[in-house]
Amino acid sequence: MNGAGRDPVGGDDGVAMLQHLGARMTDWREDFAQLQLPVRAHLMNRQGLPHGGVYATLLDSAMGFAGCFDNDPARPRLALTLTLTVNYLAQPRGTVLIAEAWRTGGGRRSFFADGRVVDEIGTSVASGSGVFRYRGDA
Amino acid sequence: MNGAGRDPVGGDDGVAMLQHLGARMTDWREDFAQLQLPVRAHLMNRQGLPHGGVYATLLDSAMGFAGCFDNDPARPRLALTLTLTVNYLAQPRGTVLIAEAWRTGGGRRSFFADGRVVDEIGTSVASGSGVFRYRGDA
Amino acid sequence: MNGAGRDPVGGDDGVAMLQHLGARMTDWREDFAQLQLPVRAHLMNRQGLPHGGVYATLLDSAMGFAGCFDNDPARPRLALTLTLTVNYLAQPRGTVLIAEAWRTGGGRRSFFADGRVVDEIGTSVASGSGVFRYRGDA
Amino acid sequence: MNGAGRDPVGGDDGVAMLQHLGARMTDWREDFAQLQLPVRAHLMNRQGLPHGGVYATLLDSAMGFAGCFDNDPARPRLALTLTLTVNYLAQPRGTVLIAEAWRTGGGRRSFFADGRVVDEIGTSVASGSGVFRYRGDA
Repeated sequence: MNGAGRDPVGGDDGVAMLQHLGARMTDWREDFAQLQLPVRAHLMNRQGLPHGGVYATLLDSAMGFAGCFDNDPARPRLALTLTLTVNYLAQPRGTVLIAEAWRTGGGRRSFFADGRVVDEIGTSVASGSGVFRYRGDA
Repeated sequence: MNGAGRDPVGGDDGVAMLQHLGARMTDWREDFAQLQLPVRAHLMNRQGLPHGGVYATLLDSAMGFAGCFDNDPARPRLALTLTLTVNYLAQPRGTVLIAEAWRTGGGRRSFFADGRVVDEIGTSVASGSGVFRYRGDA
Repeated sequence: MNGAGRDPVGGDDGVAMLQHLGARMTDWREDFAQLQLPVRAHLMNRQGLPHGGVYATLLDSAMGFAGCFDNDPARPRLALTLTLTVNYLAQPRGTVLIAEAWRTGGGRRSFFADGRVVDEIGTSVASGSGVFRYRGDA
Repeated sequence: MNGAGRDPVGGDDGVAMLQHLGARMTDWREDFAQLQLPVRAHLMNRQGLPHGGVYATLLDSAMGFAGCFDNDPARPRLALTLTLTVNYLAQPRGTVLIAEAWRTGGGRRSFFADGRVVDEIGTSVASGSGVFRYRGDA
């Protein structure tokens, strides 16, 4: 992993839901995060395509992390999602989904982020935006 | 289960993602669907709350089913999500999440739906809306 | 007008954009607001239908007011829209659009609202949701 | 104006709502559209800022046009908005709002678009996305 070499997704204090789906963080920097998820049978809807909730989960996570990067694992920044919108652009090809997100605005109390999911050949298969509120007094 | 007694979520031709999370359909009628999901450890974010993607998955599924009810299992109606918006209203209490959704408009080619997630004591913890496109010539 | 008999839309210190479109407030209570807008030529798109921005303006306003009712005109509560989603359900009939909105959650710092626009014969022609942040220390 | 030199906003068969606000099209190409709107008193909310509906109107229009460019004025492509999401990132400075939008996906029947509004000094003050349906048999 790039970024600070930290992995807030894995481990006992990580994100259980992402571990349950099989996702892992592959980049994390100031205002940016990237997650990857191998496409496997347990992610599918009844049409044999990744469930819409899979893209939503990846985008919600990547956007949330994009606004919460910091260098001190002992004092993690945490955020709550206020709202999330996902647009489903195309059906994916290949064996992996890559979610990338950017913090696009906000301040001490809340932030905005945009994100997208691309498939293995680089096609944007979903895009999204969200508004998040920092936890605590931040 | 109420409705027509059919369960499009369970079984080998069901919705793998919902099975993977532990959700099941508990009602399905014309223009309405209800899903239930026990709150368990694998659904959590790093704050110990259900991940935002859990609500999105439930709402996407319930809204999609709300527009696809029919009485002929041999010819299922299927829909693709075009867009999904989820608002995160409150933190849930209790041991189960209940997602309900209603078809609110549309025609032969696409439909609109609204949905909400309530917790065990009846509080609305998330709401959402979506636009869906019917598959095939429908 | 019902509610407290106050009209925060009209007058010199009102909402210039709503006045410019021709809208007026027709109800305002705790957690609820209603606006009405006569359908006139200046609201149309190039297809002769009310512009999508008209519904968005009405919903944004009605939802914002729904979270800002108070009884003291000398100390108005004000809110900023963080995000707004509008679903366009149907084409309107008749000569007036009626927007209604409800505060659905939140706390001291931000709130959620849902809204809808109905036409003269009572059909829901648009629905929406939004997240808003109170101004100042509220 | 760049693009094909056509102006589908102005004139008797243009977009009355945009004319009423004072907006004009400043670029139109395949999969892209740009509108500009001088900031004037009639656009304001009761806080003296451009009303949220102003950004929504600009984004809805620019995104709709981005998916409807063609070279034959006698046979305009038209689209209906299915859904629109707007994020309000910052307060604008200067005397003009510039809305830009890109078609990001879709096919013959519907399309997706993203857009943003920047102020006079280039700050992104709003972003948005939408799903649109082509009119007629398109």
